[in-house]
Amino acid sequence: MVIVIRPDATGEQIDFITEKLKSYGYKLNVSKGVERTIIGAIGDENALRDRPVKTLPGVEDVIPILKPYKLVSRDFRKEDTVIDVKGVKIGGKELSVMAGPCSIESYEMIHEAARRASAHGAKVLRGGAFKPRTSPYSFQGMGPEALIYLRKAADEFGMVVVTELTDPRDIDIVSEYADILQIGARNMQNFRLLHEVGRQEKPVLLKRGMSATVKDFLLAAEHIANEGNLNIILCERGIRTFETETRNTLDLSCIPIIKSVSHLPIIADPSHGTGKKVCIGPMSLAAVAAGADGLMIEVHPCPEEALSDGDQSLTPDEYDEVMNRVEVIAGAVGRTVAK
Amino acid sequence: MVIVIRPDATGEQIDFITEKLKSYGYKLNVSKGVERTIIGAIGDENALRDRPVKTLPGVEDVIPILKPYKLVSRDFRKEDTVIDVKGVKIGGKELSVMAGPCSIESYEMIHEAARRASAHGAKVLRGGAFKPRTSPYSFQGMGPEALIYLRKAADEFGMVVVTELTDPRDIDIVSEYADILQIGARNMQNFRLLHEVGRQEKPVLLKRGMSATVKDFLLAAEHIANEGNLNIILCERGIRTFETETRNTLDLSCIPIIKSVSHLPIIADPSHGTGKKVCIGPMSLAAVAAGADGLMIEVHPCPEEALSDGDQSLTPDEYDEVMNRVEVIAGAVGRTVAK
Amino acid sequence: MVIVIRPDATGEQIDFITEKLKSYGYKLNVSKGVERTIIGAIGDENALRDRPVKTLPGVEDVIPILKPYKLVSRDFRKEDTVIDVKGVKIGGKELSVMAGPCSIESYEMIHEAARRASAHGAKVLRGGAFKPRTSPYSFQGMGPEALIYLRKAADEFGMVVVTELTDPRDIDIVSEYADILQIGARNMQNFRLLHEVGRQEKPVLLKRGMSATVKDFLLAAEHIANEGNLNIILCERGIRTFETETRNTLDLSCIPIIKSVSHLPIIADPSHGTGKKVCIGPMSLAAVAAGADGLMIEVHPCPEEALSDGDQSLTPDEYDEVMNRVEVIAGAVGRTVAK
Amino acid sequence: MVIVIRPDATGEQIDFITEKLKSYGYKLNVSKGVERTIIGAIGDENALRDRPVKTLPGVEDVIPILKPYKLVSRDFRKEDTVIDVKGVKIGGKELSVMAGPCSIESYEMIHEAARRASAHGAKVLRGGAFKPRTSPYSFQGMGPEALIYLRKAADEFGMVVVTELTDPRDIDIVSEYADILQIGARNMQNFRLLHEVGRQEKPVLLKRGMSATVKDFLLAAEHIANEGNLNIILCERGIRTFETETRNTLDLSCIPIIKSVSHLPIIADPSHGTGKKVCIGPMSLAAVAAGADGLMIEVHPCPEEALSDGDQSLTPDEYDEVMNRVEVIAGAVGRTVAK
Repeated sequence: MVIVIRPDATGEQIDFITEKLKSYGYKLNVSKGVERTIIGAIGDENALRDRPVKTLPGVEDVIPILKPYKLVSRDFRKEDTVIDVKGVKIGGKELSVMAGPCSIESYEMIHEAARRASAHGAKVLRGGAFKPRTSPYSFQGMGPEALIYLRKAADEFGMVVVTELTDPRDIDIVSEYADILQIGARNMQNFRLLHEVGRQEKPVLLKRGMSATVKDFLLAAEHIANEGNLNIILCERGIRTFETETRNTLDLSCIPIIKSVSHLPIIADPSHGTGKKVCIGPMSLAAVAAGADGLMIEVHPCPEEALSDGDQSLTPDEYDEVMNRVEVIAGAVGRTVAK
Repeated sequence: MVIVIRPDATGEQIDFITEKLKSYGYKLNVSKGVERTIIGAIGDENALRDRPVKTLPGVEDVIPILKPYKLVSRDFRKEDTVIDVKGVKIGGKELSVMAGPCSIESYEMIHEAARRASAHGAKVLRGGAFKPRTSPYSFQGMGPEALIYLRKAADEFGMVVVTELTDPRDIDIVSEYADILQIGARNMQNFRLLHEVGRQEKPVLLKRGMSATVKDFLLAAEHIANEGNLNIILCERGIRTFETETRNTLDLSCIPIIKSVSHLPIIADPSHGTGKKVCIGPMSLAAVAAGADGLMIEVHPCPEEALSDGDQSLTPDEYDEVMNRVEVIAGAVGRTVAK
Repeated sequence: MVIVIRPDATGEQIDFITEKLKSYGYKLNVSKGVERTIIGAIGDENALRDRPVKTLPGVEDVIPILKPYKLVSRDFRKEDTVIDVKGVKIGGKELSVMAGPCSIESYEMIHEAARRASAHGAKVLRGGAFKPRTSPYSFQGMGPEALIYLRKAADEFGMVVVTELTDPRDIDIVSEYADILQIGARNMQNFRLLHEVGRQEKPVLLKRGMSATVKDFLLAAEHIANEGNLNIILCERGIRTFETETRNTLDLSCIPIIKSVSHLPIIADPSHGTGKKVCIGPMSLAAVAAGADGLMIEVHPCPEEALSDGDQSLTPDEYDEVMNRVEVIAGAVGRTVAK
Repeated sequence: MVIVIRPDATGEQIDFITEKLKSYGYKLNVSKGVERTIIGAIGDENALRDRPVKTLPGVEDVIPILKPYKLVSRDFRKEDTVIDVKGVKIGGKELSVMAGPCSIESYEMIHEAARRASAHGAKVLRGGAFKPRTSPYSFQGMGPEALIYLRKAADEFGMVVVTELTDPRDIDIVSEYADILQIGARNMQNFRLLHEVGRQEKPVLLKRGMSATVKDFLLAAEHIANEGNLNIILCERGIRTFETETRNTLDLSCIPIIKSVSHLPIIADPSHGTGKKVCIGPMSLAAVAAGADGLMIEVHPCPEEALSDGDQSLTPDEYDEVMNRVEVIAGAVGRTVAK
């Protein structure tokens, strides 16, 4: 931590600041510049982060030096984390494709989605049972019944299941059917929920919040890791910006940034990340080219009848066509797609 | 709902679109312009909102006409909602000042905060027992013990209590001690939590999410209202923008906007909304001038020792000084501050 | 400047970094922490700011300590700058109200706007002759003829004139008629234009760019100051955020922030800053309460006939009503409004 | 244009609105819904766009139906525009790679940059002579001398030249040396400059402004086109968001969006768009995968000595490595890179 002293600070104020920092257990390194004096505080930075040092009279600014996350950082683990979900590897050479409808509406539709998705590169079946919806008048999901359908369809095609958990009280029922627990963007800073999934053993798919910086995103993962679960899959799904042509702005730059500071796998969700059909194909290719470890894509057997997100879902045929192109890009960047 | 037809749509496509809309139960009004044909669909717009009309071949755009919220809108209730919390009126002529520390750290400190806050205009005591913190290494709150302290301190000075609920499993314990249940910014779209507070009777203080538009904010309130509880106090607490000098950007313009479309009271939180001590006073005055029904201000007897948000807390003396100026502004806009 | 060294940097890399910094003329202060070594570089920080120190092998991060602006900062001048425009003081106790239409459409309308504005607190007449418009199909302003009308109307009512300069080639003609040269938001980083107005003597009204941080804004002012002209009036007019209910988000927090680091006067423009009539009154009051030195308000004798921005213009009667309330707030914060 | 009528509008108000709209020359289509009456105004929408219809008593909202741009839209020209610059095609099957240093610092460096760039896929040499810099204390470019160097280096390697124009007064000197005139992000709404480049014949490279929506971006292009020059190359170079890990957020989704509504070619600039070396390679690949017609990449023979943007420049060797991977991706999406 570096403390910048105001140019008009008195000697007494500086003495008080240094005594205070020493009393917290820090060693100090004082550097007098032409325009400002700065103090380097050497010791556990996270402990100091919460101290209201900025309020001390004579302090102009307090600048952290270290990254605030540890367990999810490359400092903690150098090599890439590869997560094994019943034999399906996430974070390795093979791209992880997670496909399926936004919400499960019947057994027939999830079965058909699983059939088509598994036939073309997807080993993870996605589908919502509990849907967080902006409006209370929108379809909120079928609930537990949908979980049974989802599991059944996945099993039939040898897929693993990812589905969203929205309430700590649902963890047992959701865990009974799911292989990967998804934390949605709106719950990225629902810390109580993060702690729950951190205390159990199933892998967690953590979606980036709409207003989360990369730092916030990794700190949310750290909340999970700190409870004991390091099997975390990050998912970029768009951030909120002033642009309104797309529902969100898919921030693909975060992929190389996160790869450089964290060992966790990261996938991209171009369906939610753009909300526009015309973008899903191109942004799927772009995500893989940028280094994503996988894709989450909404596929609906009949988007015209979908009860949620139909506008951004691909038909199985459109999905096939996107996956054909994804395979070529995967090859170009040294990745593979499951056969 | 207005459906814009692509200029290259075929007659068959247009027929299919109109048949589809009629099958949903809408009456149609077709208007052929020079460059585009548009179809007005007359009927329940919310039902149509979820239909993936945009995916129909030949459709260029779908434009909603009505506001998506109902119960919280002025269409539903013309006059301002005034909420009565044990005799304390929120939304009336008297400004509602909610003051206290970010988190409760001991009985002594909350007692002292209550003493000083109640002496100067605050009838609502705030304080966190369960703290959602970006980093898992920050102080997460004292938990249930803090609630006892908070209640005791409030009672001693005749104040009512507002505190944050972060988990549906805590609703009984929090309700036992609190008069107003706060939903924090990070949980604004934790719909399961919204439904819980919507099903009970205590008033709810709903903070605006960092990436929530005014529409999202009112829809979150609608989630609560739709479960039966219309005693909702909105709270503007800053949105996330590119500006980094302040922790968030306090969007005071949302106050007149919301007042024009909703009957709910709205207060402002300049402490979290700016995160900078130098802004708290000026932005408190500005919020009242803009029409806010109250203020939420962090007051800590000894900010230098605070375990959270010390940098943005006022000392009781600083609070007094801000409140002296708030009183003058309140008078200037026809409001009062409690004696 | 603080240079953070990567934990895996070799001794040779560190030597190279320190030699490089010394060769630039900096004295160094090396501080070895538990997890990172940091180097404080003492000397002219602005010179170092442009050096690509981050590219040196072994460097993790480079953190500036000083503010990048000088002449516009409080370090350079402690007391508030008060600008005298033909006897009209900007930045003093009296609020500077600048009122008039978005664009000048005829002599009659600017005469009527001047008559009504001058009758109620405004000593500065605003009006556009050259209009930067998002669409090429919108009215682009009357050009030079409008300047003659503007000057004549201002003179008749003893007002001074502010109008926008959009092209360095217009500086002579605009200077002939205007007392204050306005640089619009879209040109805030048109540095060639900034340099031109920096080399002449008339005061400059500099509007904040839609994507400008406070730092960018003050650096734009520094571009003007560095050419010799310190008579700069800053104007907050809204930044671009995800919120779409208002045209921009008026960032009033920037007023106390800027007041704390700069000596320049700052006013607010709630007309462009919100683009919504319902917000103009409340945000005018809020700006004054937050410490603004003045207001820029669009007044049009007949908004229904306006050729630009009619939706956000006040009628003279509405303007009177807003000014009545501004006067009360001004009094409450120790300011005055001209009689 | 659709006009939404307030539910409490009187018959007289509605009559006034309809008379007004008819007086502007519009045909009307009135549609009475359950909750709102809406009026479709049939006629030239751009003419109505500037009319302050929202101010008419009884009007709740005014919703435009048509896109505000014409000449740059696919409605105007169905097929992709391919621009021929002295035989170099931009917008065709072959990717347009524009490489070179941020600013030209000497003949030797631009010569070396041209040698290496032309050897690996770049047919366009970029380099700044007049640099718009956020701080007045940063290097502002060498000026006219740099143009001579740039031209000479390009000619030696058979490249064409793109360089930025920042002032209408420089158009003759810049045109003398450049083949493509670049309008920088900060000048995207410097309409006077846009009109100048619209009135001459050389192709224009228009960079997206940091706070420009896709609509604003295309309207800026329309300003150029409306003056007669349709040879416009769009360039996505990052927008301003809350994320601070990257200098800007490169919005690749805008590529498929723009391709779907406009016939103009669009390239991406991952150097300015991310400002981080670790992102340049991955985002170059991603841009090509997303459908970009080319790339603008900063290459500096010795980034450690660069006077501007050294932190985000590639060395020639790094550039070679990125281009090797770009070639593979190009092949995967059916594009080619020049040999």
